[in-house]
Amino acid sequence: MTTANSLFTKHQVLLEQACSAVQDRGHWLPYQEIPSGKFYGDSAKQEGEKAYLARLNSHFSLKGSPVTGQAGVEVSPYSGALNITYDQYDASELVSTAKAALPQWRDAGAAMRVGVCMEILERLNQRSFEIGNATMHTTGQGFAMAFQAGGPHAQDRGLEAVATAWMAMSSVPENSHWNKPQGKHDPLIMSKRYHIVPRGVALVVACSTFPTWNTYPGLFASLVTGNPVIIKPHSQSVLPVAITVEVAQAVLAEYGFDPCLVMMAAEGHEVGIAQALALHPDVKVIDYTGGNNFGDWLSDNARQARIYKEQAGVNTVLIDSLKTLKRSAQNLAFALSLYSGQMCTTPQAVLIPKSGIKTDEGDMTFDQVADYLCNAIKKFLSDPERAAGVLGSIPNPATVARLESACSLGRVRLVSETHPVPGYDEAVYRTPLLLEVDGSDPAWQQEQFGPISFLVAVESTEQGFELISDAIARKGAITFAVYSTDEAVLDRAERVAIEQGVALSCNLDSGIFVNQAAAFSDFHATGNNPAANAALTDMAFVAGRFAVVQSRRHV
Amino acid sequence: MTTANSLFTKHQVLLEQACSAVQDRGHWLPYQEIPSGKFYGDSAKQEGEKAYLARLNSHFSLKGSPVTGQAGVEVSPYSGALNITYDQYDASELVSTAKAALPQWRDAGAAMRVGVCMEILERLNQRSFEIGNATMHTTGQGFAMAFQAGGPHAQDRGLEAVATAWMAMSSVPENSHWNKPQGKHDPLIMSKRYHIVPRGVALVVACSTFPTWNTYPGLFASLVTGNPVIIKPHSQSVLPVAITVEVAQAVLAEYGFDPCLVMMAAEGHEVGIAQALALHPDVKVIDYTGGNNFGDWLSDNARQARIYKEQAGVNTVLIDSLKTLKRSAQNLAFALSLYSGQMCTTPQAVLIPKSGIKTDEGDMTFDQVADYLCNAIKKFLSDPERAAGVLGSIPNPATVARLESACSLGRVRLVSETHPVPGYDEAVYRTPLLLEVDGSDPAWQQEQFGPISFLVAVESTEQGFELISDAIARKGAITFAVYSTDEAVLDRAERVAIEQGVALSCNLDSGIFVNQAAAFSDFHATGNNPAANAALTDMAFVAGRFAVVQSRRHV
Repeated sequence: MTTANSLFTKHQVLLEQACSAVQDRGHWLPYQEIPSGKFYGDSAKQEGEKAYLARLNSHFSLKGSPVTGQAGVEVSPYSGALNITYDQYDASELVSTAKAALPQWRDAGAAMRVGVCMEILERLNQRSFEIGNATMHTTGQGFAMAFQAGGPHAQDRGLEAVATAWMAMSSVPENSHWNKPQGKHDPLIMSKRYHIVPRGVALVVACSTFPTWNTYPGLFASLVTGNPVIIKPHSQSVLPVAITVEVAQAVLAEYGFDPCLVMMAAEGHEVGIAQALALHPDVKVIDYTGGNNFGDWLSDNARQARIYKEQAGVNTVLIDSLKTLKRSAQNLAFALSLYSGQMCTTPQAVLIPKSGIKTDEGDMTFDQVADYLCNAIKKFLSDPERAAGVLGSIPNPATVARLESACSLGRVRLVSETHPVPGYDEAVYRTPLLLEVDGSDPAWQQEQFGPISFLVAVESTEQGFELISDAIARKGAITFAVYSTDEAVLDRAERVAIEQGVALSCNLDSGIFVNQAAAFSDFHATGNNPAANAALTDMAFVAGRFAVVQSRRHV
Repeated sequence: MTTANSLFTKHQVLLEQACSAVQDRGHWLPYQEIPSGKFYGDSAKQEGEKAYLARLNSHFSLKGSPVTGQAGVEVSPYSGALNITYDQYDASELVSTAKAALPQWRDAGAAMRVGVCMEILERLNQRSFEIGNATMHTTGQGFAMAFQAGGPHAQDRGLEAVATAWMAMSSVPENSHWNKPQGKHDPLIMSKRYHIVPRGVALVVACSTFPTWNTYPGLFASLVTGNPVIIKPHSQSVLPVAITVEVAQAVLAEYGFDPCLVMMAAEGHEVGIAQALALHPDVKVIDYTGGNNFGDWLSDNARQARIYKEQAGVNTVLIDSLKTLKRSAQNLAFALSLYSGQMCTTPQAVLIPKSGIKTDEGDMTFDQVADYLCNAIKKFLSDPERAAGVLGSIPNPATVARLESACSLGRVRLVSETHPVPGYDEAVYRTPLLLEVDGSDPAWQQEQFGPISFLVAVESTEQGFELISDAIARKGAITFAVYSTDEAVLDRAERVAIEQGVALSCNLDSGIFVNQAAAFSDFHATGNNPAANAALTDMAFVAGRFAVVQSRRHV
């Protein structure tokens, strides 16, 4: 039997690969991303679906502080209310329970914590089909995406955080021998010890659209550095978090640790638990993904905590010229459609010079480019199975309302259509709305969360760069894509990316899309513009979560 | 001639030694700490003093934005007013000038910046005697201490920051080759680039007591990661900073960089430049050492910046039992005397059980221990030359006033005496005041900056731990020393240290003192209690000063 002591050894090879990967940043996938029986076992798909269905219409119980109530308001856009209830807790009791679990976890040491965290990730990986179903029905993502983003790709990000934190922690020795020569006298010799000590209790405030992908980096970065973690899920996307916490608690208990090192603070329509947790003096680390209202509130009020947050932004594409018109348009069609534009990496605005552009199929006017792109989207989404799989179904009525009222924001170039999702009688998918506006129009420079995109007419490529720079500086962005056959333009784009702290993708026209960020290779956000104050996953994301406390004595 | 490109190579061996040292944390000294001609050249001492004297009664000119005025109010406690004036600038102009210098420095790359920073440190090292004199006459430290703390030991901390930052930056590759297999199809291949990008303009708000030691970590951590740095010196301790900036500007210019990458914002008695700089939206990183008033103000107001700060604290010593009474008392006598208690690491309170303690010279009552310690201090300071060298001369009238009024805070066990400094007619040194109070007395639990210490009578060793834990949690601390012959008590102390985030020293009775922290081996502060939110120099101190911006394209 594997003991807690041997968990590190069990996972050591994978850990070393992960540490190499984060430094090499080539392609590396620790967890299989294809939802296939070949990798997950022949019955995995059926068992995962069955496990998901067994969750419905029941109570989901987790370890925590004394229960004060129950809540559960999740509605699948595909199949209606999940009717799952979750326990609720008092914020102060949760923090006390977490704090009580801290010393044993801290004193277990970095290597043991790494072993336990990697065991949790391995178990989560085995549950990928169940988590995929849970993610699909809470976020509205198509199953293929829900499996990948909710399962292996989220696990990748978790392991990336563990590996980066291990590099930071293991750069500090456990002890040292300090020997200072004193000329003719005996040397001064001291024995020193260095302890990795967590900041305190950590809080992760999860989002509705990526309840695991955006949660695992903070969860594992905090946990592996010794901080007990309380996850406050979005009320619409609790189940993927609950399964995650269940797995974490089971592994912790199995290896002799307090399962309450990872707890969940669910709530229903009424809000308040996130605020109460965030303001607790013992909560020292907060990870947050979501809108600016709560993010700004956190920065203004949760002053005792180190905050790692990702908020709204305006991602842009600038088309200067195209060397592969057709493939580039197909690539953008996918990028604008994927998950109905609800990714924090989805481009919101495509800037095109009014005077038209050069392409491999000849010169094109602005109107021709706009039409070509709209047609590419229409064609890409003409097959309902594919359209539903790519677009998913929007669970949030506010997003639907935003889409419905967005027509007034510009000249409609592509109408958003509503169609039934094949196989789900009650569900619909909505195709992207494309609006034409002028570069000076403020509409495109404000996040319009959902399948709403702008074709922006600019005076020139240079004006496009200026407008994009200004929008990012004011509103933030995580991605920026440029299309040009001119190296000087690509260099200019690189400079904008550096100045504004945004990830640049150049001339994407194959199987990579601007909204995709691969763990171990792509950094997600930079912390250098208003969209985020941290990056997944760089050294700054992990290093502030622990302190080093030393002692010394003469030998 | 060494070019900018070859500076990295020039310093590479030392850099590699420094990177090993910060990970091994054994004894390592890159810069000679003994003020001897043997290391610095036979004429170094005379030349350094001459260079210092040549600064007096003149204007000290540095590169900066347009000059708006002049100020200079430094007074040597040894020899009176320095009569040096420094240029003053408009805060907004300074930031604009710094910002304009940023792109070239950022684009030079991490290796070149490391080379330039190490060249600056090498040149500073050559100026150690001049800086030592400047430090002595501004801080009031005795020369030996001023040389060490102001010169080589400050340079050590600067190099430690450079090495730690280099480790963080060099863990990110400059580019990667991302090759993802696609089964039977051609692989997806992307070429990616990763840029180390600074946060913006950095500000260092220096303190009066250690104008270089507490400044170099932030200065070099920010500079080497690409941020231009503006140093706002304390009005009493400008000269050591000015010499530092002069050296940095000379090296930067010599290697083709804008000298305004490092600038100084001096002020006189009127205040305001630090606030104006701290609130500037382009100032993204702030390092601060000093009192809580300005530190709290920074946290409340400079919300656009990442703040690394060290504030007030209450350092303690707990005596449970002594295995070497005499040597332990001598050690504490030095620790309490050094620089008149004006170190952020000086113990303020010595807690002793009321029931007395066991020692190698027999059982002793509280009173006997108190008397023994007072006598050890008296004896240690009985030689005026030695006393003046160790104590220095207090330049700050507020500290003198605090000392003079402190007698009312407890029962006086050792009177503070005032004596002339040998060789300086106008100067005096002041011996430490020791007050006896009860454990419950709030007086010892509040920083009393200066040569004011408390002998605190506690019910038991355990109560001592509890009082110390409580004081650290509320007021912060950087150091904690314990004396005990009982391993269980030392273990208990280790636990207090871990819980409260304070560095522990056990049974110091030889040539190491609790207030000394050796670069490359000892971390200074932890960030886990109110005395500081950062540590010199761990990964968290450097990693947040830069972002990684990436770009990618198909191959």
